[in-house]
Amino acid sequence: MSLHLQRDLDALKKEILQLGNVVESAINFAILALVNRDSELAQKAQGFEDEINNKEVTIEEECLKILALHQPVAVDLRFIVVVLKVNNDLERMGDVARNIALRAQYLASQPPLPIFQEMASELPEMVRSMVRKALDSLVTLDVGLSLKVMKMDSRVDEINRRMYTEVRNIIEADVKNTEVALSLLSTSRYMERIADLATNIAEDVVFMVEGRVVRHTGGNRI
Amino acid sequence: MSLHLQRDLDALKKEILQLGNVVESAINFAILALVNRDSELAQKAQGFEDEINNKEVTIEEECLKILALHQPVAVDLRFIVVVLKVNNDLERMGDVARNIALRAQYLASQPPLPIFQEMASELPEMVRSMVRKALDSLVTLDVGLSLKVMKMDSRVDEINRRMYTEVRNIIEADVKNTEVALSLLSTSRYMERIADLATNIAEDVVFMVEGRVVRHTGGNRI
Repeated sequence: MSLHLQRDLDALKKEILQLGNVVESAINFAILALVNRDSELAQKAQGFEDEINNKEVTIEEECLKILALHQPVAVDLRFIVVVLKVNNDLERMGDVARNIALRAQYLASQPPLPIFQEMASELPEMVRSMVRKALDSLVTLDVGLSLKVMKMDSRVDEINRRMYTEVRNIIEADVKNTEVALSLLSTSRYMERIADLATNIAEDVVFMVEGRVVRHTGGNRI
Repeated sequence: MSLHLQRDLDALKKEILQLGNVVESAINFAILALVNRDSELAQKAQGFEDEINNKEVTIEEECLKILALHQPVAVDLRFIVVVLKVNNDLERMGDVARNIALRAQYLASQPPLPIFQEMASELPEMVRSMVRKALDSLVTLDVGLSLKVMKMDSRVDEINRRMYTEVRNIIEADVKNTEVALSLLSTSRYMERIADLATNIAEDVVFMVEGRVVRHTGGNRI
């Protein structure tokens, strides 16, 4: 590999991680705003959109430039394709974080609803940890970490499914709670979506390192 | 451009369109099952998953092969990057179509709820038309068509937002409707997500043809 290619790939890696860090901050602020019912934090969480969008466009242009200039092959080519996909997924995570923040702001202005422990603490914590681990696995190329993320996703799905029953119970107990309960349900779905996107990143890392596709293999993939 | 590259690009175009057709069928069956309360159609709509997943993996491998073998530049390179992204988005559409089908199956077994006209006919029809137009714009490289898709997306968002109020009214009118109404809300969200993914494809086509990024430009992008 030429020194120039190596230098450009290193720069690209740095850029995608920077984007990852910004998106992670947006998610953390949004989730903390939700959990702590803090509308100031919720506003802060909405302030990352432009930075995320600009970085995403720059990174995609960078990938195209490297492909055209250096025509990389094998693992370098796979790395760039993975960066293109991760870039996309990070930007979408940023959008979802913003949606959580908007709901968090509304929910902070309403009386709190009783929700089950897993939704109040386990789910937010798991989602944050999955995002962190997915990004770490991309830096360190640690497939073990990627597999952990993929495994955590089923637990997130389980909590999210329970949330439907929970919201139904809250509404049936007092129909005046409908609007707030629907917003709460949205935040649970949004967190589940971030977890899905983190899982995509983890799967892409496995593909990059091992050259094998672990998408679509369901429960057997781990 | 070498004859070999031309031949491989043509084959790739054919494959991504085939995937598009399968995904479109899955969406059409799922939406028709939902609208006509037809549980047989709903089951049919769930039968496309393996085909979609296999095609997606094949197309990604094909893209990597072409990149490594022919090292394309300029518009050919952009085409392959767009195929990689569209491939991803189509597979995700397939997943969402399956979720609609699952809800449609449940809803068909329950007494029907009164819903507003836009949700019952305009939204499903718009979503199907956006998917069709997005795929057509990819074949014909017709940017005018892509811009139409992007414009339709705001109307879909509007209907989906109204659906929240509607569901709340249905529940508040009779709390026994909660479970069915929540499922109905999910189908509206899923359709909105398919519309989002169709919009991504349309934006990618504009990028491929004009080399300009129209993501993140909000209402000003058209």
